[in-house]
Order: sequence, then C-alpha cells, then structure tokens
Amino acid sequence: MNKLFMILVFIGLPLSIIGSIFHWSAVIMFIIYCLTIIALAGFIGRATESLAIVLGPRVGGLLNATFGNAVELIISIFALKAGLIGIVLASLTGSVLGNLLLVGGLSFFVGGLKYKWQSFSIYDARHNAGMLIFAVIVAFVIPEVFTQTLNDRNTMIVSVGIAVILIVLYLAALLFKFVTHRGVYQTDNVQNESKHEEDPEWGKGKAIIILALATAAVAYVSEHLVSTFDIVGATFGWSELFIGIIIVAIVGNAAEHASAIIMAYKNKMDVAVEIAVGSTLQITMFVLPILVLLSLFFSTSMPLVFTWPELISMVTAVLLMITISNDGDSNWFEGLTLLAAYVIMGIGFYFI
Amino acid sequence: MNKLFMILVFIGLPLSIIGSIFHWSAVIMFIIYCLTIIALAGFIGRATESLAIVLGPRVGGLLNATFGNAVELIISIFALKAGLIGIVLASLTGSVLGNLLLVGGLSFFVGGLKYKWQSFSIYDARHNAGMLIFAVIVAFVIPEVFTQTLNDRNTMIVSVGIAVILIVLYLAALLFKFVTHRGVYQTDNVQNESKHEEDPEWGKGKAIIILALATAAVAYVSEHLVSTFDIVGATFGWSELFIGIIIVAIVGNAAEHASAIIMAYKNKMDVAVEIAVGSTLQITMFVLPILVLLSLFFSTSMPLVFTWPELISMVTAVLLMITISNDGDSNWFEGLTLLAAYVIMGIGFYFI
Amino acid sequence: MNKLFMILVFIGLPLSIIGSIFHWSAVIMFIIYCLTIIALAGFIGRATESLAIVLGPRVGGLLNATFGNAVELIISIFALKAGLIGIVLASLTGSVLGNLLLVGGLSFFVGGLKYKWQSFSIYDARHNAGMLIFAVIVAFVIPEVFTQTLNDRNTMIVSVGIAVILIVLYLAALLFKFVTHRGVYQTDNVQNESKHEEDPEWGKGKAIIILALATAAVAYVSEHLVSTFDIVGATFGWSELFIGIIIVAIVGNAAEHASAIIMAYKNKMDVAVEIAVGSTLQITMFVLPILVLLSLFFSTSMPLVFTWPELISMVTAVLLMITISNDGDSNWFEGLTLLAAYVIMGIGFYFI
Repeated sequence: MNKLFMILVFIGLPLSIIGSIFHWSAVIMFIIYCLTIIALAGFIGRATESLAIVLGPRVGGLLNATFGNAVELIISIFALKAGLIGIVLASLTGSVLGNLLLVGGLSFFVGGLKYKWQSFSIYDARHNAGMLIFAVIVAFVIPEVFTQTLNDRNTMIVSVGIAVILIVLYLAALLFKFVTHRGVYQTDNVQNESKHEEDPEWGKGKAIIILALATAAVAYVSEHLVSTFDIVGATFGWSELFIGIIIVAIVGNAAEHASAIIMAYKNKMDVAVEIAVGSTLQITMFVLPILVLLSLFFSTSMPLVFTWPELISMVTAVLLMITISNDGDSNWFEGLTLLAAYVIMGIGFYFI
Repeated sequence: MNKLFMILVFIGLPLSIIGSIFHWSAVIMFIIYCLTIIALAGFIGRATESLAIVLGPRVGGLLNATFGNAVELIISIFALKAGLIGIVLASLTGSVLGNLLLVGGLSFFVGGLKYKWQSFSIYDARHNAGMLIFAVIVAFVIPEVFTQTLNDRNTMIVSVGIAVILIVLYLAALLFKFVTHRGVYQTDNVQNESKHEEDPEWGKGKAIIILALATAAVAYVSEHLVSTFDIVGATFGWSELFIGIIIVAIVGNAAEHASAIIMAYKNKMDVAVEIAVGSTLQITMFVLPILVLLSLFFSTSMPLVFTWPELISMVTAVLLMITISNDGDSNWFEGLTLLAAYVIMGIGFYFI
Repeated sequence: MNKLFMILVFIGLPLSIIGSIFHWSAVIMFIIYCLTIIALAGFIGRATESLAIVLGPRVGGLLNATFGNAVELIISIFALKAGLIGIVLASLTGSVLGNLLLVGGLSFFVGGLKYKWQSFSIYDARHNAGMLIFAVIVAFVIPEVFTQTLNDRNTMIVSVGIAVILIVLYLAALLFKFVTHRGVYQTDNVQNESKHEEDPEWGKGKAIIILALATAAVAYVSEHLVSTFDIVGATFGWSELFIGIIIVAIVGNAAEHASAIIMAYKNKMDVAVEIAVGSTLQITMFVLPILVLLSLFFSTSMPLVFTWPELISMVTAVLLMITISNDGDSNWFEGLTLLAAYVIMGIGFYFI
C-alpha cells in the first residue's frame, strides 16, 4: 500500500505538470489529479500519524484538520477572487457534509468492522456538539431567515458581524482547550500512555518535512484539478453544485479521509473523531468567516447566506452526528447510518 | 376484561359480516368495526405477551410491531391501487405520530401511574434515536426540500433512491441487532431472568394460532372500516386528512396500543418502548419505502414527499420523543407531555 | 456594591416620579428608569437569596422566576389592552431569548470565571429539556405551520386550544415537581445540607417585605420606561421589534439577571439554571397562554403565531441550551457560546 502510494506520487506529480503544459484531455488529467491527491494524502496521513504519536492525540488531530483545510482555504481564495461565490459556499457545504458524514461514517464503519465497540471521549463529543449547534444551527440559520427581507448592504453587515463572532468564539475555544481547561479530559491521559509505547514511523523533523512537501503538492494539484471541473461536469452531466459539494468534498478532504480511517482502524477513535468533527468546526467557525471577511477586499463580497438545500443538509447532518456520537462510542451500524445520509444528500444534489 | 373482549369478538365479527352484506348504516358499522378491532387487539396483545415470555422481550417486541404493521401495509396497498396517495401518506404520518406520541405517551403515563420511575435500556433508546433522526429528519426532510424545483420524473427517481437506501439500512439494523451485536444489551439478560419466572398464559403453538387468526380478522374488519370513512367523515365533519392521521392511527394501531400499555403496566418498559419506537422505525424504514417501490407497478406512483404539516409534525414528534427517552427512564409526566403533543397535532389536523 | 444600589434606588425612584410629572426628556428618563430598575433588581436578588437559603434552592428559584415574570405579565396586559399584539409577542420572545441565552450565558460565564467546572442536577436539566422542546418546538411550531392556510377565526380556535393544553401541562409539571415526585432529586439534598450552614442576610419576614416593595417599584418604573420607547427608538434608530426583543429582555429581566449571576458566582448552579430555564418555561407555558386567553376579552385577540424570525430564534436557542446543559455541568466557554448566540440574534433583530 505504502509502496503503491509512493509509485503513484512519483508518476502522478510529473504527469500532472507535463499534462498541464501539453494540454492533455481534461478527463484524463482529472483522473491523474485525483489519484495523485489520494496518494499524497497517504503520505500526509502517515506523517500526521508519526507527529500525532509524538505530540499526543489532540494536537495531532488539530494538526491534521489544519493541513487538510489549508488546501481548501487556498482553493477558496482563488475561487473568491474569480467571483465564484456559489462554488465557494457549495464546496464549504461539501466539506462539512464530507467531514461529518463521509469521514465520520467511514471511520465508524471501518473501525467497527474490526472492533465490536469503539469509544472516544464523551466530554469532547459534548463540547463539540455545543459548537456544532452554535455554528450551523445558530450562526448559519439566523442570517438565512433574517436576511430574506434585507437589502444586499445590510445582509453583508449582518454577515460580517456574525463572521467576527464566529472567529472570536473559535479562538476562545482554543483558549479553553489548550489553556484554561487543558488536561481535564481523562481519556487522553489513558490514551497517551498506551500511545507512548508505540514508535513513530518517522522522526519529528522528517515527518514535518514530508507533511509540508505533500501538503504543498496537494495544493498545487488541487488547483489544477479545479480547472478541469467544467469540462468534466459537461462530459458526465454533473451540475456545478454537485461537483462543488460531492467531488470537491471527496478529493479535497482525501487527506482527512485517509488519516481518520487509519486512526479508526488502529482504534484511536479520539483522533478520528477529532479529524471529522474538529475539521468541520474549523471550516464553519474559522475558514468560512475568514473568507467572508476577505471577500470585502475583492470585487464581489460573499454574504453568509447558503441556499436552502445546502443549509438543510448541514443542519440535518449536524443533528444526526450529534445524536449518534453523544454516547461516546461507535460501531459499524452507526458508521453505515452516516454514510447512508451522505448518499441520500448526494442523490439530492445530483438531481437538483 | 378478557371475557368482555371475547364476547365483543364473537358478537362483533358476525355482525361485521352480516352488516356489510345487508348494507347497514355506515355510522353503525363504523362503531361495530371499531369495537371489534379493539377487542381483537386484546387477543393479539395477550397472544403476543405469551410469545414474548417464551421468546424474550426484543423478539416479542419485534413480533408485535410486525403484526401491528401488517394490517397497515395491507390497507395501504389497497389504497395505493386505488391511487389514493394522499391518504396513504396521511395514514403513515398518523401511524408515526400515533406510535410515538399516543402509544408511547399512554405507556409512559399508565405505567407511571403505577410505578414512580420505570426504566428501559439506554442503549436501545440511543440506537433508536439515531435511526429516528436518520429516517424522519434526513430521509424525509431532504426530498421535501430538494424536490421543490424538480419535475415529477426526477422527484420519483430521488424518492426511489432514498427508498432503497432506507430498506438497506433497515436490513442492516436487523443484522446489527440479531447477528453482529446480539446480546450486547445488559438490560435484557437481567429482564429475561426475571421473566422466565412467569408462566405464559398460552403455550407457543396456541399463541401463534390465536395471533394469526386475530390478525387476519383485524385485517378483514379494517378494510371494511376504511370504506365507511367517507360517509362517517361527511356525517361528523372530519376532513380526509384528519381521518387518515387521527382515526386510522388510533384504530389501525389499536393492537400496538393494547399490548404496549399492558407491558407498561407490568413494568416491562423495554417491550413497551420497542413497540412504540420499533413500530415507528418499521413504518418509516420498511413499510413506507416498500410502498414507494410498489407504487411503480401501479398507475399512480407515490413520491416520498409529505405535506409540510405532516413532515413538521413528524420531525417535532421525533425530537420530543428522543429528548424524553434518551435518559432511559420514564414517569407519568413524560407520558402526559407526549399525549399533550398528540392532542396539539390533532387540533391542528382537525382544522387544516 | 450594595451601598451603590441603595443610593441609586433612593435617588432614582424620586427622580422617576418627579421626572414623569415635569415631563423631562425621554432619553434622560430612559437612563434614569434603566438604572433604577437595575438597582432595584439588586435588592430583589438579595431578598430572593435570603429566602432561597430558608426555603431551599428549588422553591427559591421558582419564587425568583415568578417575581421576575410578574413584571412582564403586568406590562403585557397593558400592551394587550392597547392592541399592541406584535410588541407583546416580541417582548415574550425577547424574554425567552434573554433568559436562555443572556441570563443562562452570563451565569455560566461569570460562574465559570471563578470555578473550573460547575455542576447542576442532570435530572432537572433533562426534565426541563423535555418541556422546552414541548413548549417551543411543538406548541409554538405547530400553529405556525398549520395556520398558514387558516382564516383568523380558526387560527384563534387553534391558538386557544393549544393555550389551554400548555396551561394544563404547566400545572401538571408543578404537581409532578412538588407532589408526586418531590425530593427525588439527589442533588438537592446534598445542596440543602451545605446551604443550611449559611446564614441568610435578611430574616424571612424582612426578605418578603423588601421583595414585595422592590417588585412593586420595578413594575411602576417599568411601565413608565415602556412609554419612552418610541422616542428613544426614534432617537437611536432602534426598530420596535429590536426594542421589544433586546431592550425589554435586558431591563425587564434585570431581576433574574442579577440573582442568577449572584447564584452562579456563589456556585449555586441549580438555582441559577432554575432561574434561566424555569423562567423561560413559565413564560412559554403560563404567561403567554394566559395572555392568549385574556386577549379574548379585549378588542383585538392574540393568536399563538409568532413571526418566522422570532420562532426560529427561539427554536435554535432551545436546541443550543439543551445541547449545552444536558450533561449537567457548565464552564466559561459554554457561557460564552450562549452569549455569542444572543449577540448574533441581537444583530439580526437590529437590522430586520
């Protein structure tokens, strides 16, 4: 598996560059880009895992989510610059659905095939539940309902205000987790102990270098991938919304997918859940509000107003994830339920 | 009580046949049919209870839900054949509301009058909560929101896709409960032990025969009951929606009502909750999707799209039931809350 | 602090009377009224606390909520008499949001600054969660969705029916709490013991007299405060909805704010939560339905139908509060999350 990924990267990366220079067919390039990203994601997963062993499960999980979302932030800034507001909101929606339902679902399902029950910190699950409800059900629903009678200027003022509050609360959450309430989570200590027995695959320095290079390569390839979407969409009959929400979610979050599932398979559910839910929170409470504020400096500003199908999908995904995860354990059926919800939304976005 | 039921059946059944032959007044037949069904439900309850003692609480509960819903499935197929899509969706909505709020509420209330606190498996409650959210809040809400801009053909494709996923997940839930995670529920073992001390009223063979005959008789009478609805509705000023949602829910689920309340009164809350919630899950994840697929073979196909009042009623009923039941215990006030919610929805459907 | 409040009251009350006689500027009177009410609230808080020590945390909390909401009931009746239905519904919405998010948030936040974790009865939290879902998500959502196609007369019939059910369930909740299930809450007994060690500031008689006088004074000043709203609104550019929901919520609930925060700071979280959530339940299940029934005797009757922004705000506030409080403990971050939700809704109502 690791050797296959290495071969894919060392073939895929040069082909990505050569193909884009010689203008190969978009469908062929699309497949090359996707495979290369998935292979690079394997390296990111292994590097993150090595770092996670050294740094502990929570910091490792946060690291993971950051490196996964850096790619999305970069792509979104380019799209924003080009005025493609609809695609940015769609791809962020896709990231939320992909992280909660697809990454979360695959982690629970794959881990559950190996272990009868897997458990994770109930304190983290409840802490995260409050933030998910806050971000998606308060901060996204309120502007949707309130701005229906507002003009564009007031809609943007409300959006900016809510974006600032989201960022402030996100920073407060980091303060809570790493300063005022550090180490209050019993589960971690137990896990850390068992983890220190393992040896990391790579040393700290080597892991950081590989992580940085692989992330840069993923960003480079992702950007080119995006430019093939219109032709691929026309070829396969996929709408822009479907590409933004489903394809970007799967390929753009491949790094998280890979590492979350590896963690789940190794029974490190705290890390897997941290990747799925932590990444969702980072997108909703940090990446999206940053993009709303950045859009003020571009020609087209982006309000915090989703389409109704996007919003309802996120709201129902949050309610399902909270209901399933707030008992602090998981099994294959819970994973399958999340995956089934993802497929239902996929069908919906395909036909819309 | 048992004697009264026996008398009612042996008078009611012949009168049902005679009355339908000689075309007696619809209102009189309506009363005869209702009383006969309720009396038959008493037999079903006793037969199921006997079987439940022999087979254990979960299989007994499943059995119960199956025999209750077989009646609804048969009635719905006849209605579907006649193209009465609105009445089918209304009566399934009524079954969901009736099972969650009326059966669940009466069980909690009646049981709570006798016992200060009653407890049931918290693992089952949480497992069921995930499925309720999945079925009603994901699988029913998504097509409602997504198909508003779709044409009839695509609406039907989305409905069929979601119906297939619901059935697959329902079968996976049976696999989870009876194969991969059988016997993981502590509560059962404890209950089974205490239950084996009781003697069943009827032997296994006799109970099965009575169950089969009574169910067949309920199906026969129910079908004739339905044909009186238009005249009764006109006589009492009840709309078709109100009859579908309230009257069908009460009479059609009389079997579940009777046995759930008997179980609650005997402090077997695991069985009572299994009937109320398990029956809801069977209707939403099995009966309804089967009907959507079957409707493809009839002249009018039935999409998975409820009216807004129907959908909102089910969503709020699910949220209320989950909030009330996820602590694993019940009391009379929780039962009264569920009943009050049922009355509020009843008032709404009466005037709509 | 106590001396400052005493000075404020003995200067503010005479100035309130003199100013209203000599028709001073509305903006100046607005500031005098606000400060006087906040100072009076300090006395109410101290008197309630003295009584709470004598009578136990639950009765103390109920007492608190009653005295806070008596003011709102009186103001609402005057507004109803003047036909100002929109302002009554807005100010009740504001009370719900203010109690759940502002009082609850400040209690959790201020208490959390002093204590790392604070805990309260998980049984109460879950009992209250069921009632919050019932009142806001069933009893308020159903008429909103169902009455959209009804005429005014039927809308009013549905409203009256639901109002009666709300009052019946509220009385049943009192019966449950104080008669059939009195003293089932473990936490109380523990708390009561530790509380009996404290000496109340004032004796029972003195506390009752101060409570009665201060409440009467708050009612007097509040009524005059309301009459300044139109001029103050015009001066500062505040809409009627914003004044009803935000200003009335802050000043009208100042008494609850003061005592809840004092209780939280003294680590009596059971009382603080009882004030925030108990007061919300009293408004939604008692004050509002009483007003609906009373409105039948006035020229304009008030249906139980909120505007969509009002309803969605309450629904999301309830979901957030339940998610945050159902683990039975709190910290500063949970408080900040509730406050952030309040600010987001405040921004929304300001621009709407």
